[in-house]
Amino acid sequence: MATSSEYRELLELIKEINTLEQVGSLLDWDQQTYMPPGAFRMRGEQNALIAGLIHERLTSDRMGKLIRALKKQELSADGRVILREVERKWKKASSVPAPLVKEISITGALAFEAWGKARKNSDFKSYVPLLDKMIGLKQKQAECIGYEDKPYDALLDDYEPGMKTRDVEVLFKRLIAKLVPITRQVLDAPAPKNAVPAGKYPLEDQRRFLNVLAAGMGYDLNCGRIDLSAHPFTNGGGKDVRITFRYQEDNPIYSIFPIIHEAGHALYEQGFQEKYFGTPLAEAVSMGFHESQSRLWENVVGRSLPFWQYYYPQMQQMMPKFQKVPLDAWLREINRVTPSYIRTEADELTYNLHIALRFEAEAAIFDGRLKTKEIPAFWNERFERYLGIPVRNDAEGCLQDVHWSAGGFGYFPSYTMGNLYAAQLWHAAKKQVPGIEDGFAKGDLSVMLGWLRKNVHRHGKRYSTAELMKRITGDNISEDYFIRYVSEKYGRLYDIKVRAAPKIRSKA
Amino acid sequence: MATSSEYRELLELIKEINTLEQVGSLLDWDQQTYMPPGAFRMRGEQNALIAGLIHERLTSDRMGKLIRALKKQELSADGRVILREVERKWKKASSVPAPLVKEISITGALAFEAWGKARKNSDFKSYVPLLDKMIGLKQKQAECIGYEDKPYDALLDDYEPGMKTRDVEVLFKRLIAKLVPITRQVLDAPAPKNAVPAGKYPLEDQRRFLNVLAAGMGYDLNCGRIDLSAHPFTNGGGKDVRITFRYQEDNPIYSIFPIIHEAGHALYEQGFQEKYFGTPLAEAVSMGFHESQSRLWENVVGRSLPFWQYYYPQMQQMMPKFQKVPLDAWLREINRVTPSYIRTEADELTYNLHIALRFEAEAAIFDGRLKTKEIPAFWNERFERYLGIPVRNDAEGCLQDVHWSAGGFGYFPSYTMGNLYAAQLWHAAKKQVPGIEDGFAKGDLSVMLGWLRKNVHRHGKRYSTAELMKRITGDNISEDYFIRYVSEKYGRLYDIKVRAAPKIRSKA
Repeated sequence: MATSSEYRELLELIKEINTLEQVGSLLDWDQQTYMPPGAFRMRGEQNALIAGLIHERLTSDRMGKLIRALKKQELSADGRVILREVERKWKKASSVPAPLVKEISITGALAFEAWGKARKNSDFKSYVPLLDKMIGLKQKQAECIGYEDKPYDALLDDYEPGMKTRDVEVLFKRLIAKLVPITRQVLDAPAPKNAVPAGKYPLEDQRRFLNVLAAGMGYDLNCGRIDLSAHPFTNGGGKDVRITFRYQEDNPIYSIFPIIHEAGHALYEQGFQEKYFGTPLAEAVSMGFHESQSRLWENVVGRSLPFWQYYYPQMQQMMPKFQKVPLDAWLREINRVTPSYIRTEADELTYNLHIALRFEAEAAIFDGRLKTKEIPAFWNERFERYLGIPVRNDAEGCLQDVHWSAGGFGYFPSYTMGNLYAAQLWHAAKKQVPGIEDGFAKGDLSVMLGWLRKNVHRHGKRYSTAELMKRITGDNISEDYFIRYVSEKYGRLYDIKVRAAPKIRSKA
Repeated sequence: MATSSEYRELLELIKEINTLEQVGSLLDWDQQTYMPPGAFRMRGEQNALIAGLIHERLTSDRMGKLIRALKKQELSADGRVILREVERKWKKASSVPAPLVKEISITGALAFEAWGKARKNSDFKSYVPLLDKMIGLKQKQAECIGYEDKPYDALLDDYEPGMKTRDVEVLFKRLIAKLVPITRQVLDAPAPKNAVPAGKYPLEDQRRFLNVLAAGMGYDLNCGRIDLSAHPFTNGGGKDVRITFRYQEDNPIYSIFPIIHEAGHALYEQGFQEKYFGTPLAEAVSMGFHESQSRLWENVVGRSLPFWQYYYPQMQQMMPKFQKVPLDAWLREINRVTPSYIRTEADELTYNLHIALRFEAEAAIFDGRLKTKEIPAFWNERFERYLGIPVRNDAEGCLQDVHWSAGGFGYFPSYTMGNLYAAQLWHAAKKQVPGIEDGFAKGDLSVMLGWLRKNVHRHGKRYSTAELMKRITGDNISEDYFIRYVSEKYGRLYDIKVRAAPKIRSKA
């Protein structure tokens, strides 16, 4: 199909935006890895300039004209996806007036400071005025963007495009109803003994093993690299996708699972088609889908027996202290379930209870059902109900996460969506490729990766989350797969018969 | 003095350009240190985009209007310097038409490839057509920029603003006349025995010592960092000035002197006044002056006896193999003079012979006195005359450096200018601060740095090279100081009486 000059111009413009985004990514990567501390303010100016150049192009008259012209033209299938997604981004960027964007940014800086102090003193009250202001600004933002049903939809849409608050509510309600009793059952069973031998695991030994793991998963180090940072992250795109890890010298678990997680993200980025680089056809469907890739590798593959049947002997060679720890003890160790106050330290089961609680609070706030000052009471009551332990103070409670201070509402649900998607994808993969796990025990992860490449990665944003999931698994998005997966897995690991394991209705 | 809105707008505009330049610097730093090889093409696109944004702003109508308006206004002393320098940059950038810039860039890429092949096969002939084309394009560029006397002036001006081909010719002619016999005398004396003990010097040991050296010089690691790269360089500005080193496991000399050199550059950058960041008042006077800082630290300070009286015992502790090597043997080792084919491997004396030869060739080419195909004969004849060894092939001769392929003419002289400036500055420092060297032996380099901060660094581009040198040393730029310095130094080291040590006419 011949392409119009407007179409070519649009591609040029979005590729320029993408190149600026790559530059922004590198600034961020550097800031979190190697930047000297004294450069902090300069880096802020650099970030602001690049972000401004991106916003300028995204909301330019030229962009508006091109989109309007192309909507009247007949486009190829690729062209229609690109136009749809660019229009979505353009509308959103254009709908929020610059002064509001600026006020959110300024309030975010102040609220960040207030949050830091409040958490330090476990004093939620002192945080209320700025948090309240931020919520008000985000409500305004939601009004600018627009929504059909609930204001929170407009915020959620940044992370799970097309998904509505109602969808998440229904899904999480069912999830909680099933997950809480399962978690309780697991917690009632005897906990595994600590299997990590005391002593030091030097950084270089850990690093060597992390390289083996990431390369074994198929992460292309010729177009990526692995560095240390305070918090692990995946950065970049195209031919330059970098991952980071943190570590503790006394326990390699703290570096191993973050690196499998980040390599899972990176494999998604490295799985886009080169011909689409710089367009939405080489971008993740949603944040939740991105998370599904990291969680599938980290939890489903990376915490499974066959995976460690291959990798554990190598680990034992690189970290000889583990030679006295049998494989099954290691497996129970890395699948330990403990209720904890801090989300980021939570296990595969309880993690979702943290997220559901966080989402319920956000939904209630933006529904007007929950006032800012009432958040701690709301939090503490549900926390104990879901996790079975009483919250001792707000620092360990509703003040634990920084995100709200910057206006990060609508973002948390993606984490649990990622877990649900991962389980649903895993179910389909096992059905479609019988014996897919057999390769794991021989170190062959390529069938798994190939299946993801073919079914998920290469499509970029061609389909919506719901469409893509239906295409791959034949079913709507459902919590059933996750419940089934954890019931089986933890039933086996803890030698208990988990009640409530649901029947799968899947047609995949 | 009240500032006009145009002045404030100009400052904003040049600071934006500067921020983009910082971003460009980081892209370059990353490319030379950590970038995965697969990202090469993407990085090219990012560089081109940032360079384009800079060029766009520098040559914008807005810039032209502001400059014209400000030329009619009464400005502060700072304002006059800033306007003068911005106008200089703007005129130059605006005078060369975009198609010519593009053709130089495209020809550069082709010539780079041709140069690589030609050097590999030592086949200058195959390189002639593209080198010839590049020379033609640079001649056109010089015509666009304009010059009073010689086209080469326009190229030289990029590196040594205000300096003319004639000035360099006169200076280098006198330098060569004196330096060649001195070098011959030194080479005729018995060469020092190899003082580096055989064996391995692990990277981490070298790195630890390099940190001690750089920090000891006053390099601020809170606003900088030290990394490995294939070729050492200094990168960035403001609060983020990074340096790199290369190393050989069997000889720490290969990392020590590059790091002292680069830290010398970095100290210049770190010595600008913060209130001027982003303006020409926080930029080096010239490339030669930048080089004077690196060479002063590397050669004058870093290869001196008192410096090593303090640092050698520390080095011996970190690299115990040196405990059996006496200090004087180490000192002779690091001041070894050997004629060599490759400029980048040359010592303090012969280096300048390489540069003079390179400059003479460039000057002759742009005078029309030397045809491209005649370069090898010209090169070989002078090389043997200056260095006393016959050129065996073009790969080791006129093909050794990559710079011409990218159109880098006018740039080489700065290296030797840096040596001359360094010696002249050193002469003045010693006169003005009697006993300045005494501190070196106690590890106190702060008096040296303080003197450079006060006399050189804090001025940025306030004065021209010639003005600044006159201000500091009371004399015009002269080769005498360098000749005097090397005569004394190498006379002492090689225990010979160097003829031709000139009288210094300085009034400093």
